[in-house]
Amino acid sequence: MKFGAEILKQADVLGNFSEDAPRVTRTYLSKEHRLAGDYILSLMRDAGMTANYDAMGNVVGRYEAGVPFAPIVMTGSHQDTVRNAGKYDGLFGILSPIACVKALHAQGKRLPYTLEIVAFGDEEGVRFGVTLIGSKAMAGNFDPAWLEKRDANGVSMRQAITDFGGDPDAWRDLDRRGEQHGEVVAFVESHIEQGPTLLDEGLAVGVVTAIAGATRMNVKVTGLAGHAGTVPMTMRQDALAAASEMVLAVERYCCENAGLVGTVGKMSVLPGAVNVIPQDVDFTVDVRSENDALRTQAISAIRAEFTSIAARRNVKVDANPFFELKAAPCDESLQQQFATAIKAQGIEPRYLPSGAGHDAMEFPSVCPIAMLFVRCGNGGISHHPSETMTAEDAEIATATLLHFFEQYQPPVFVPDKAQRVDRS
Amino acid sequence: MKFGAEILKQADVLGNFSEDAPRVTRTYLSKEHRLAGDYILSLMRDAGMTANYDAMGNVVGRYEAGVPFAPIVMTGSHQDTVRNAGKYDGLFGILSPIACVKALHAQGKRLPYTLEIVAFGDEEGVRFGVTLIGSKAMAGNFDPAWLEKRDANGVSMRQAITDFGGDPDAWRDLDRRGEQHGEVVAFVESHIEQGPTLLDEGLAVGVVTAIAGATRMNVKVTGLAGHAGTVPMTMRQDALAAASEMVLAVERYCCENAGLVGTVGKMSVLPGAVNVIPQDVDFTVDVRSENDALRTQAISAIRAEFTSIAARRNVKVDANPFFELKAAPCDESLQQQFATAIKAQGIEPRYLPSGAGHDAMEFPSVCPIAMLFVRCGNGGISHHPSETMTAEDAEIATATLLHFFEQYQPPVFVPDKAQRVDRS
Repeated sequence: MKFGAEILKQADVLGNFSEDAPRVTRTYLSKEHRLAGDYILSLMRDAGMTANYDAMGNVVGRYEAGVPFAPIVMTGSHQDTVRNAGKYDGLFGILSPIACVKALHAQGKRLPYTLEIVAFGDEEGVRFGVTLIGSKAMAGNFDPAWLEKRDANGVSMRQAITDFGGDPDAWRDLDRRGEQHGEVVAFVESHIEQGPTLLDEGLAVGVVTAIAGATRMNVKVTGLAGHAGTVPMTMRQDALAAASEMVLAVERYCCENAGLVGTVGKMSVLPGAVNVIPQDVDFTVDVRSENDALRTQAISAIRAEFTSIAARRNVKVDANPFFELKAAPCDESLQQQFATAIKAQGIEPRYLPSGAGHDAMEFPSVCPIAMLFVRCGNGGISHHPSETMTAEDAEIATATLLHFFEQYQPPVFVPDKAQRVDRS
Repeated sequence: MKFGAEILKQADVLGNFSEDAPRVTRTYLSKEHRLAGDYILSLMRDAGMTANYDAMGNVVGRYEAGVPFAPIVMTGSHQDTVRNAGKYDGLFGILSPIACVKALHAQGKRLPYTLEIVAFGDEEGVRFGVTLIGSKAMAGNFDPAWLEKRDANGVSMRQAITDFGGDPDAWRDLDRRGEQHGEVVAFVESHIEQGPTLLDEGLAVGVVTAIAGATRMNVKVTGLAGHAGTVPMTMRQDALAAASEMVLAVERYCCENAGLVGTVGKMSVLPGAVNVIPQDVDFTVDVRSENDALRTQAISAIRAEFTSIAARRNVKVDANPFFELKAAPCDESLQQQFATAIKAQGIEPRYLPSGAGHDAMEFPSVCPIAMLFVRCGNGGISHHPSETMTAEDAEIATATLLHFFEQYQPPVFVPDKAQRVDRS
């Protein structure tokens, strides 16, 4: 085994850099982010790359092209985790390309493009409530207002970046659209599936067709508090009973209509006493699909059902979408090149959507994107300590990725910029 | 109007003694408990009573009998409130008998028994999580282990009683079973209904038949966390979807079986993130009935349904009863005497159960109990700022109570104690 065992060992080391060991939790710009970043830097340098932190705490390694004036292919994923996370989400997408470069470097082999590997400082958004901070900055999608967001201890992102040794006002310089840092021709990401599809079908890897779009809503149900012993059942305006019907309505709609997933992940109940009928229930809804029309339709149908449940129960409901993300399709040609690399491992390519968001989804503003999924063990669990990946799968995925890197030919550009497609 | 307007004014004054004005919240042994207690003391003394705090912060007023060696009738209710409470729950049961005594005293009239009015320090249990502290102590049901319970700021009940000027270790002396403080022959309580029955039927007052029994359970549902975007609907073990079905099962059972109310008042959902399938949901169930068999049956049926929901959804459920209270029937003869007093106001007596717990429910260990209910306005809302009572209803209820006090004849005891019924 050339790659797999070593990558899993490296993931174990990274899992130790945790804010609440023995659980794994590592948030943006934390002390543990620094420890993990330094370790990743050392792996990159050992693999023959130049590597450094950028102004926002992302670790960026470069494996220079074998030819002059070559374009750039970017790859990578995030170093941060959710609370009480697994060890492979994000990390595998950093460690696997480093292993590829190490193998290339050992053979003294250079590619017809510069390969950049990024360990994004933040994707999960745990610390500041903004997700995909690293990739948003690089894809020109960063909003400087976010610098004033504060964590649970009142520390602003601006302050935290400064304390980390970065420069919060240099966010503009990270933007990879255009050519000030060289032309980026593709962003590819390898990632654990975080779901059970490849596991169920006995496949080590798969090609991602699109990253699902998502709508998130805050829902507020307002009933009327009352004494749990004295208000007859027929006269209640119980906000929790109404919300319970709504939770089941989300579930039912997404079960009955293929291509959707829907989740109520957060709920709070007030006043929250054993002997008081609930008056105020707040909950969130998250609906995803790789088909934007299906998702939009689902949100309308779910909102209509909420309204009818509330009317029947004599409570009020407000459902406010606060986040919408269109599906990000993967580039057809890159998908085919990944399929070829998978066939080279003796595996039939399986095409599947990604229900989860990933750093790659920010990059369509910069260049075409593609993703390689690796089988997730243990029923497909992720965002959880029982997330697993086998060394065999890590081996196959890394060999696939290396095959892709070795075969990939950057497009040849006509020097006259006027003839290029404007991707901004 | 002799009583009503004055009582409502007094309730307004008491509503100002609040820990979070303009809301009304007054917990046991707080600064506001002291202010309310001092005000109640002054009302009692103005009415011609001797009155003082006891060792646990209850205010006790005595209107001495007109004959020597007379027994005692106790009345009263609680001075404390839930958070964001109404103004009449508890307080009316203190203010209305004081108004009765004031009227008797003005006429120079004494009763054939000593009337004791108690303003119990705690009934709601907000501060220390133990309910009915005052009445439990007086009824010999106090557990001294509760003295070590701590409030949200870490202050023990023991410390709080001491700081209030009381004596925590004197709880034994409050016990009114037996005769060390004189023979108690009845405990009667006037109270706002906290429900809509009298309001619906256009009646100012009613006679309580029994105080409902209750069972409370802590329910823990354990599913499996997972990524909201990647776990297909059919493969989820969503603890919140399961708990939602359980909430609706409690509601349905108590709707379909008359004589029950059931409430899920508290719920917490973990990990509690918009993009994570809930793994752990904790909630409470409160089921009440004046019929103990009906309640026991309901709890069995609900637990069985929880088990079947959990099995179908591949989650775990634990339902642990943590509180059980048998129904407390009111004394038949005292009920009839209240009915007579109601008829004297030109109102047809309505007999109804109390779904809520009250101080009176602790006293069957001491003596026979009875309760008078007063109409609750505004749909019957209580434990809420919109709880209302009209001056007219306060007038009728107080006149009823006074009629009862004037007509009540204590039983004549044979001096030989051996012939008495042992009520301990």
